[in-house]
Amino acid sequence: MRPEEVLERLKTQRIETPSWGYGNSGTRFKTFPAPGAARNVWEKIEDAAEVHRLTGIAPSIALHIPWDRTEDWERLKRFAEERGLRIGAINPNLFQEEEYKLGSLAHPDRKVRDKAVAHVLECIEIMRATGSRDLSLWLADGTNYAGQDHLRARKHRLREALERVYAALPAHGRLLLEYKFFEPGFYFTDLSDWGTAYAHCLGLGERAQVLVDLGHHAQATNIEAIVAFLLDEGRLGGFHFNARRYADDDLIVGTTNPFELFCIYTELVQAEEDPDPEVRRTAQEVAYMIDQSHNIEPKLEAMLYSVLNCQEAYAKALLVDYVALHQAQAQGAVLEAHRILMEGFRADVRPLLREFREGLGLPVDPIQAHRNSGYLQRVSAERGTASAGGGFPS
Amino acid sequence: MRPEEVLERLKTQRIETPSWGYGNSGTRFKTFPAPGAARNVWEKIEDAAEVHRLTGIAPSIALHIPWDRTEDWERLKRFAEERGLRIGAINPNLFQEEEYKLGSLAHPDRKVRDKAVAHVLECIEIMRATGSRDLSLWLADGTNYAGQDHLRARKHRLREALERVYAALPAHGRLLLEYKFFEPGFYFTDLSDWGTAYAHCLGLGERAQVLVDLGHHAQATNIEAIVAFLLDEGRLGGFHFNARRYADDDLIVGTTNPFELFCIYTELVQAEEDPDPEVRRTAQEVAYMIDQSHNIEPKLEAMLYSVLNCQEAYAKALLVDYVALHQAQAQGAVLEAHRILMEGFRADVRPLLREFREGLGLPVDPIQAHRNSGYLQRVSAERGTASAGGGFPS
Amino acid sequence: MRPEEVLERLKTQRIETPSWGYGNSGTRFKTFPAPGAARNVWEKIEDAAEVHRLTGIAPSIALHIPWDRTEDWERLKRFAEERGLRIGAINPNLFQEEEYKLGSLAHPDRKVRDKAVAHVLECIEIMRATGSRDLSLWLADGTNYAGQDHLRARKHRLREALERVYAALPAHGRLLLEYKFFEPGFYFTDLSDWGTAYAHCLGLGERAQVLVDLGHHAQATNIEAIVAFLLDEGRLGGFHFNARRYADDDLIVGTTNPFELFCIYTELVQAEEDPDPEVRRTAQEVAYMIDQSHNIEPKLEAMLYSVLNCQEAYAKALLVDYVALHQAQAQGAVLEAHRILMEGFRADVRPLLREFREGLGLPVDPIQAHRNSGYLQRVSAERGTASAGGGFPS
Amino acid sequence: MRPEEVLERLKTQRIETPSWGYGNSGTRFKTFPAPGAARNVWEKIEDAAEVHRLTGIAPSIALHIPWDRTEDWERLKRFAEERGLRIGAINPNLFQEEEYKLGSLAHPDRKVRDKAVAHVLECIEIMRATGSRDLSLWLADGTNYAGQDHLRARKHRLREALERVYAALPAHGRLLLEYKFFEPGFYFTDLSDWGTAYAHCLGLGERAQVLVDLGHHAQATNIEAIVAFLLDEGRLGGFHFNARRYADDDLIVGTTNPFELFCIYTELVQAEEDPDPEVRRTAQEVAYMIDQSHNIEPKLEAMLYSVLNCQEAYAKALLVDYVALHQAQAQGAVLEAHRILMEGFRADVRPLLREFREGLGLPVDPIQAHRNSGYLQRVSAERGTASAGGGFPS
Repeated sequence: MRPEEVLERLKTQRIETPSWGYGNSGTRFKTFPAPGAARNVWEKIEDAAEVHRLTGIAPSIALHIPWDRTEDWERLKRFAEERGLRIGAINPNLFQEEEYKLGSLAHPDRKVRDKAVAHVLECIEIMRATGSRDLSLWLADGTNYAGQDHLRARKHRLREALERVYAALPAHGRLLLEYKFFEPGFYFTDLSDWGTAYAHCLGLGERAQVLVDLGHHAQATNIEAIVAFLLDEGRLGGFHFNARRYADDDLIVGTTNPFELFCIYTELVQAEEDPDPEVRRTAQEVAYMIDQSHNIEPKLEAMLYSVLNCQEAYAKALLVDYVALHQAQAQGAVLEAHRILMEGFRADVRPLLREFREGLGLPVDPIQAHRNSGYLQRVSAERGTASAGGGFPS
Repeated sequence: MRPEEVLERLKTQRIETPSWGYGNSGTRFKTFPAPGAARNVWEKIEDAAEVHRLTGIAPSIALHIPWDRTEDWERLKRFAEERGLRIGAINPNLFQEEEYKLGSLAHPDRKVRDKAVAHVLECIEIMRATGSRDLSLWLADGTNYAGQDHLRARKHRLREALERVYAALPAHGRLLLEYKFFEPGFYFTDLSDWGTAYAHCLGLGERAQVLVDLGHHAQATNIEAIVAFLLDEGRLGGFHFNARRYADDDLIVGTTNPFELFCIYTELVQAEEDPDPEVRRTAQEVAYMIDQSHNIEPKLEAMLYSVLNCQEAYAKALLVDYVALHQAQAQGAVLEAHRILMEGFRADVRPLLREFREGLGLPVDPIQAHRNSGYLQRVSAERGTASAGGGFPS
Repeated sequence: MRPEEVLERLKTQRIETPSWGYGNSGTRFKTFPAPGAARNVWEKIEDAAEVHRLTGIAPSIALHIPWDRTEDWERLKRFAEERGLRIGAINPNLFQEEEYKLGSLAHPDRKVRDKAVAHVLECIEIMRATGSRDLSLWLADGTNYAGQDHLRARKHRLREALERVYAALPAHGRLLLEYKFFEPGFYFTDLSDWGTAYAHCLGLGERAQVLVDLGHHAQATNIEAIVAFLLDEGRLGGFHFNARRYADDDLIVGTTNPFELFCIYTELVQAEEDPDPEVRRTAQEVAYMIDQSHNIEPKLEAMLYSVLNCQEAYAKALLVDYVALHQAQAQGAVLEAHRILMEGFRADVRPLLREFREGLGLPVDPIQAHRNSGYLQRVSAERGTASAGGGFPS
Repeated sequence: MRPEEVLERLKTQRIETPSWGYGNSGTRFKTFPAPGAARNVWEKIEDAAEVHRLTGIAPSIALHIPWDRTEDWERLKRFAEERGLRIGAINPNLFQEEEYKLGSLAHPDRKVRDKAVAHVLECIEIMRATGSRDLSLWLADGTNYAGQDHLRARKHRLREALERVYAALPAHGRLLLEYKFFEPGFYFTDLSDWGTAYAHCLGLGERAQVLVDLGHHAQATNIEAIVAFLLDEGRLGGFHFNARRYADDDLIVGTTNPFELFCIYTELVQAEEDPDPEVRRTAQEVAYMIDQSHNIEPKLEAMLYSVLNCQEAYAKALLVDYVALHQAQAQGAVLEAHRILMEGFRADVRPLLREFREGLGLPVDPIQAHRNSGYLQRVSAERGTASAGGGFPS
């Protein structure tokens, strides 16, 4: 693709940041409180707006309920819009109530399942109230010991609960079903791989799609292959971007294996230009969301890096000469095809991105602009340093 | 289950041994030739018959084409039947022709795909000729480098080829589609996980089912969960049993993690007794097959251990008190449920299996009986020690 | 070994339980508070005493400082002794102070390292005060991003700090240095494998030994091989027993792979009987400690299972006929050697353990005895249900 | 570093190619014969010389004995020198004789160990005859089943054999001891990790050093941390470069995770400039060797990519501003330190490498130059297509 075209395409890129990335979070060992970390949904929106102001490509914020619950959703929506943001995916919390000790939608006890479904239905109401398109559903459901629960019975309970949720979706709303290899279920996880999520989506209906979190796979899994498969099946709903070396480390996206991120984006770019309109449509509707847990990093800066690393990966993927690539592939030219792909990765896109930012009146170095802006100093003074326990907020 | 019932159920167990387990095989570094290793399909059938004679539960042999190709399938079928065996699954070879360097059914070149399909159609003819029910399809198809081939194009080519194969199946024949995490494709494998195989099976039809090889998963994968899911979906077609620590090590089944084998069998036993007749039917039709590559072990003895380890795991799984288990599960009694399961595993089933063997007039210690039988000495003298290269026969 | 000998040897087995296993702990997502969970060190000692009363083989308790800090160590020691317990390993906490965000003993800032050393020196004082032999040192030190810190500089800082610690040990005190593959360091961990810990121990002196936690390895690591190597080098100091499928799941020991636990014990039994007195001495001084984090399990019951699973594994390992085993090994009889080992694992040791307990006047079914004892009901009433945040206490 | 300095440093880089990379090799499933693949050591030297001619940084070739054995080592040395090459590391083969079925240097039978030692001593003679500095020792020794052999006895046998080998080294010769996580030992490997190799090296003497093969680690292992540790200990002897996703895939170096290769090189560059002369000396003497097994790739082209990918990684590592990096690290500036490192990786070094090549009169595009040279056509005509079995040559 020619640089001018790349610049045009970069303008269409959108990355959604998560409200919970702006507050304190940690490992099970310790949550280190960060000065100025957002304490409530209003402050999270302000932070997300700052990220969008600096990057120009992060115009929405995902919410997590109940952490972000408010009395007046209309006001919250306006508050966001006044700052150039819209409300993105709504994420129910099905893991922090005492009742969820043995699961939520797949729990052995119907009362607990009903409670969990009721919470998701509340989230669907929040979708309506905020204009959100996507219900983003991650379940902590699983077991810790062989024999602890009946695997097929759990499957049936989960399906039944998902059907109740799916039936309640708004007309154009989507259910994005996230899978995760392990944690906090250490023996078994009810939605442990894309295949399980996919099978449930097939059973639910067209607006149920799979959510791919980059940290939720077994070691050595080829994630771009999963992305390609789901794109082809019309079932790729979105991403939770982050990075990891071993487990679900929730690090800044693109920091541990930038080549993997690039390869994922090359599948998306190819799908965006596919001859098949269904594949193109699926690709265009993919929700690109960050999901990270910053333990030792300055939170806003970490989010900026994440968004910018996605931009860099997309830019490199756009630079690949796919016509030449497909030709080499068709000829079985193994190393030539690989080389053509790598040319995109080898490119230094920093000048191009500078040009992109200048063209849109954005700071050419968003990180430096953030550091110079005094934003962190200001919010640190205003918000102070919240006390923090272990793990996630509750 | 009461011991008498366990004894009855053990009589229904069937384990299929593979012809290629009786010949020389090795790693990429070296194939160590074993004295008396079978040199052709007739000798392999003799060895398989010996395993069945000693264990009583291995009455069929899987064939691999072209390694086991013969001119006269009728004669081969009779030869097997005279020794108490029937012909089990037919396994096409789609990885040892020069043309398959870049794949077979998913190869970029239509001519190669046609050749591969033609080979599978020949195997389907052999199914008809030998009375085999199952076509057991493993593909080495994959790529070694990012960009080497177009992932979605490969998917479409593979599906089209599979449709041609599926259409040619005998009326009651099944296509068992095997997946494998990696090897020999090191970057990408066309059928890399159960989800991919399952999706293709859905696209093909009811008689396409998934084949689970115990060595073909990412580290830490919960295989019994996959088994349970596929049983519930009516898509578990069969197993390739073996053991591994890291990769597809093809060791004697049950040797590296006997608890995992037990857990898998508990899912099968529960499905055999499920209230849902569809689940029971799926469980009853599962093909239990060994797929091992013995590098340093005496081949017949290795196969005996494999069959006996499956018997032991099944016996232990039968001993679990599932009524009590399901009750504890329903009550969320985590550790009590786990304990009930473990009681089956803790049981020493050697006395029970001795009783089983005595009841059927089988040697009480099949391994010792084999060592005492002089069989290995006899065939070593007759067959000599074949020379062997690296890896699999060709 | 004959059953009478096994019974004698079982009397010598000792398993140390950790104070933190009796309080609430959780994942980063949620800590579910358990009714009756111990709220302070006195209650933890009571719980540990109950485990020892029921099993007869858990006569010591490991402490974690500052969680278990008290003003009067003499009183605490007496309190324990009155309940049949002695104080086991002292575990410093070098991960929950704000200053430790970027490390403790390897932190870039000398002031933080000094603070960390001072805390360990305090722990050494507690060793003296409580008669504890072992300082059990786990570090959360590591980094999250490539480039975050200078790897070799961290090594030097860590070594220097360890030297200060080692120099302060009591005359017969030991430094047990624990390694961990990852978490909470997601990119790099300063003590990430046994080799690193071993190299540091060599540099420190003879009383520095390696601590093996079963959950702290990469997937597919052969832990018994590490155990054997360290035993042979005189550098195996102790264990943190637990179980896991994928990461450091801290489940009840022996629940995910009982065969692995058995294999580890076979190495220890062989070392206990080795011709080399140095190897025997190392084996005899190994500290067997549980380190678990019970998230959904009743805590005392979970600890009982852990202790009993260690007992079962040891009993099975004692039953192996090592004379025959070593003979088969020397002859290169691959499958016969494996079979001899497996005979120990196959044995049902429940009758033997019943006999062991009867002989010592212990409850024959410690779990059932615990359930019947009313202990949990009593402490639940007394202690109530503590509120709990995420992760570990702080 | 300034570009002129980078250019100077690039001139000092040396990559050794392996003779076995020019012949046919494969997986255990199939060896696909490549037209023009080298059939003997003379042709391999010609191919290595061609790689050196095109890249200017590959002036030595590693030999594998007996595959490359010749009657007249003087002549072979001259033959190489006439083509601008010297003989690099000598690699004994201890896995392809029938006797090595259960091991070589650690085999239970002294006769086999003696045979293995004798072969290595022959290789040491070849070192003398060819002027090679390094004995590069990889062992396939290991076991497939728990109990198969006595782990500590194997350690003692191995040590004793290594001592005999070490004692025979030429005065300035080095023993490079390679470790490997698994394969072909599937249960246990005698030299399975760097710690084991390191401990043996300590026991042998100063000229025993560890060899790091990039494909020989557990998933998620931080290889650059091992490199840094061994550099600091003076025990990093060399590399076997290649790439892999899951197991020891032996792909072209830098193709699956170029960022990992870059991170490794940053440790080496930092050691080359370390204040400590010992660290600098260790870094300068590191042997950089390729070890790949090309299954589907044109062999020469694959080797060219490998050499060039090492060059690219080194160039990027040289571009990092280490002064600024170390400053940021000392300040605990997590993301700034990471960003500084990444600037080196982000750089597009293609223009710089072009300049480097022009300066030395090398082809600016070595791959294209190779394709245009007619070399492959010529040797294909001369050599034909060798027939090939499975796995490695024998």
